[in-house]
Amino acid sequence: MEKIIQTALDLAKKAFDLGETPIGAVIFNTKTKEILCFAHNLTEENKDPTAHAEILAIREAGKLLKNANLSGYSIFSTLEPCAMCACAISWAKLDNVYFGAYDVKSGAVENGIQMFKHTHHKPDVFGGFHEAECADLMSCFFKEKRK
Amino acid sequence: MEKIIQTALDLAKKAFDLGETPIGAVIFNTKTKEILCFAHNLTEENKDPTAHAEILAIREAGKLLKNANLSGYSIFSTLEPCAMCACAISWAKLDNVYFGAYDVKSGAVENGIQMFKHTHHKPDVFGGFHEAECADLMSCFFKEKRK
Repeated sequence: MEKIIQTALDLAKKAFDLGETPIGAVIFNTKTKEILCFAHNLTEENKDPTAHAEILAIREAGKLLKNANLSGYSIFSTLEPCAMCACAISWAKLDNVYFGAYDVKSGAVENGIQMFKHTHHKPDVFGGFHEAECADLMSCFFKEKRK
Repeated sequence: MEKIIQTALDLAKKAFDLGETPIGAVIFNTKTKEILCFAHNLTEENKDPTAHAEILAIREAGKLLKNANLSGYSIFSTLEPCAMCACAISWAKLDNVYFGAYDVKSGAVENGIQMFKHTHHKPDVFGGFHEAECADLMSCFFKEKRK
């Protein structure tokens, strides 16, 4: 699991350097933990409000597996997914959702609308991995933006 | 408005013929009602669980306007958007959401979690346009699938 988290953190840092919201996501085989694909936010560069790390990783996974159903795979995101990404995770039928920092403002897994209380497919959820490091990246980013 | 609705219905019918969930979405200038872009569901062909009509139309609009902020524009969808699409509409800052049929099962605008009660950006919502025709397409599709 540590390699997956480090990959996601590296992606988040790369996003930060590019001026994108510093969030990274990795999709991996639930059993073997082998990494399938990954992404970081690209809303600015792509001019695409849906280009969150999780959405981009899910799109890439579907392409690689030639299947819109991603069961057998799980996702790690450095930040608690928003409602858009949480619902996408449910449509994708990912087994489990792991995330780093909790997001009181826009998170929709443990916070806010707690999406998986409402969806048909309900992945297992595990939050708080490397929480401080994941959260620090976000607060540095928003501090820079406000300057 | 009628031209926008007909365009979305034609897209939904095209999706039906392709074996895709028959939903069409159109993004248009809120003031002039000029159509900017449109899409239909492509989850099967694209092997992408996020390829709902609304998401694809939003991605295309961002590309065309070279801006992830779509304020000044509105969306019509033949079906009440799901939570993923409703949240994407909020991130995109679209002015208004118009839709055809209500979706008791997966709708998240008037039904279910009523997304815009929870998001920072709250578009105005108008449902029930050509409701019977939009709903019929969906019920025919699911009847065919169950055969």
